[in-house]
Amino acid sequence: MNERTTVVPVILSGGSGTRLWPMSRDEKPKQFLPLTAAATMFQLTLERVADPARYAPPLIVANARHADLIEEQCGGRAVTLVLEPLARNTAPAIALAALVAAPDAPLLVMPSDHVIGDPGAFAAAIDAALPLVERGWLATFGITPDGPETGYGYIRIGEEVAPGAHSVARFVEKPDLETAVAMIATGDYVWNGGIFMFRADAYLRALEAHAPAMLAAARAAIEGATHVGQRLHPDAEAFAASPSDSIDYAVMEKVAEAEGGRVAVVPVSMGWSDVGSWDALHAIGADEDGHAHHGDVIAIDTVNCLFRSDGLRIAAVGVSDLIVVASGNDVLILPRGQSQQVKRVVEALKAKRD
Amino acid sequence: MNERTTVVPVILSGGSGTRLWPMSRDEKPKQFLPLTAAATMFQLTLERVADPARYAPPLIVANARHADLIEEQCGGRAVTLVLEPLARNTAPAIALAALVAAPDAPLLVMPSDHVIGDPGAFAAAIDAALPLVERGWLATFGITPDGPETGYGYIRIGEEVAPGAHSVARFVEKPDLETAVAMIATGDYVWNGGIFMFRADAYLRALEAHAPAMLAAARAAIEGATHVGQRLHPDAEAFAASPSDSIDYAVMEKVAEAEGGRVAVVPVSMGWSDVGSWDALHAIGADEDGHAHHGDVIAIDTVNCLFRSDGLRIAAVGVSDLIVVASGNDVLILPRGQSQQVKRVVEALKAKRD
Repeated sequence: MNERTTVVPVILSGGSGTRLWPMSRDEKPKQFLPLTAAATMFQLTLERVADPARYAPPLIVANARHADLIEEQCGGRAVTLVLEPLARNTAPAIALAALVAAPDAPLLVMPSDHVIGDPGAFAAAIDAALPLVERGWLATFGITPDGPETGYGYIRIGEEVAPGAHSVARFVEKPDLETAVAMIATGDYVWNGGIFMFRADAYLRALEAHAPAMLAAARAAIEGATHVGQRLHPDAEAFAASPSDSIDYAVMEKVAEAEGGRVAVVPVSMGWSDVGSWDALHAIGADEDGHAHHGDVIAIDTVNCLFRSDGLRIAAVGVSDLIVVASGNDVLILPRGQSQQVKRVVEALKAKRD
Repeated sequence: MNERTTVVPVILSGGSGTRLWPMSRDEKPKQFLPLTAAATMFQLTLERVADPARYAPPLIVANARHADLIEEQCGGRAVTLVLEPLARNTAPAIALAALVAAPDAPLLVMPSDHVIGDPGAFAAAIDAALPLVERGWLATFGITPDGPETGYGYIRIGEEVAPGAHSVARFVEKPDLETAVAMIATGDYVWNGGIFMFRADAYLRALEAHAPAMLAAARAAIEGATHVGQRLHPDAEAFAASPSDSIDYAVMEKVAEAEGGRVAVVPVSMGWSDVGSWDALHAIGADEDGHAHHGDVIAIDTVNCLFRSDGLRIAAVGVSDLIVVASGNDVLILPRGQSQQVKRVVEALKAKRD
């Protein structure tokens, strides 16, 4: 890569994920927790784009109330914080970043709460996408599936359009299990990992064509923005006027379906996980005995359990296939394999409060 | 009952039970916890002997460091506190009480941490024992077994010696399961519930015959005692010289085996439980769905679980046959039916500290 192709990382920190309750909470969601290492998911994401030979200082699009938390976790690193006054999903969030960046800057858009076990493979995929991106394509990274997951969108891979990069034949919404199994069997599908790459101006052009109201709102929000040091506060009223939609629905699918849509997918196997559940964290972290323990834990004769605490002491004897997470004043207990059930707890708590 | 047969309750509060860890701890053991009702086990024990027509003010034999806790839980009731400077098991503890009481007082000796679901049956059993007790017998109450428990001692019932009272054919130590099943099948055995009745002088005479060193130590401890209000502090050095033994081994078995030993057992079915484990508490407290929850608990699609908290919030989905107890900074998790395993946790914690 030469100087002209320095990539601008755009790190999205919009989620308020409750799937990892009770550790992940509105005031400190998943990306700001040290779930997979001593560093937080956000810090690991920053770390992956730290090489100044490859990456410009990142643009971080985040909820305004997490500004202090983010600066603390950045540890003095030069970043630009684009602070959303309210959430409008990913397409408008990325629009803000694209309006702040130089028009010809290649943006690498990624969530702040994913694990990438093989950063070298990720870098190689970025290198594969870059030539197409520089020619105005919208690129996405397609995760090589390791099973018929029903929690992700899928991408059907088209013909190769550059070394290691393919056109997108189509995007497929989260499937049922039968459909997922059938797709996996063909070998032509990858998971949509929510990581994208395009020039800022290419994204804005796509918005203009397919989501003009969104573009107008984002533009007005940036024009009315206030700057405080490295913090940029888009105008709240203008941004509130934006439709709320994901980049997948509002942009990628629309462009892919359009005549001559130049949307590429770079298939990559890079130890990716969105750490979307306690089960996912167990899958990443379990040792050969199936243990994935963290914090003050006494486990005697236990098998295939995730015990995790950020303060309380967990003592267990003789249980198997159990998830126990203790955080603050809360203790969550679920059977392993059913950690999506945490949402029922979160709903019950919300119902109590309301 | 007339005035001369008023019974003196002797409440033993010596245990530091770890079988109900993490709620029961050395500094506040089981008897001082509200495990089965709004009142504590100790308070329920006091309550059972509250009728002034039947009972004199109780003698409470307890660990000296629990004195404040006991007075607080007595709520101003007139009691005498005999405060052990150190633990020497039940036989010496009862010796202290017998030396403090009037020689002809019938003592009703009972642990402070048992449940008696049918106080009327208990009162009737006491009435059945009293005539023998007044004639110098040592009486014990035999709990009608509801299964081949291996955690209790058993008593073989002999011939009837007074209405509802029998001689003791023999005491049997905690049996293995096979022996327990065989004993239950005969119908001649009851559990030794650890509740006794005898005149103070009858107990002291038995000690003189079978444990003279214990009697001498207790007598010296009381002679050297200091009084502070209702608190009696036996002399520590004198009491430390006492052998340490249970009333069962040191007295009851010896007298029963002796030629002409006058030891009676009154069989009684009174909803008794020693609440010796979390499983026992579940058995007492479970509703028809098998739930036994207490404290801040959210339980969704759970079956046959005991969830109990004195502060933390427990949220569980989809688990069954699980015991979860949260107290202070600790969370205990065990399969139902294996709550005796808590001792392994307590041992592990002790090993860490040492």
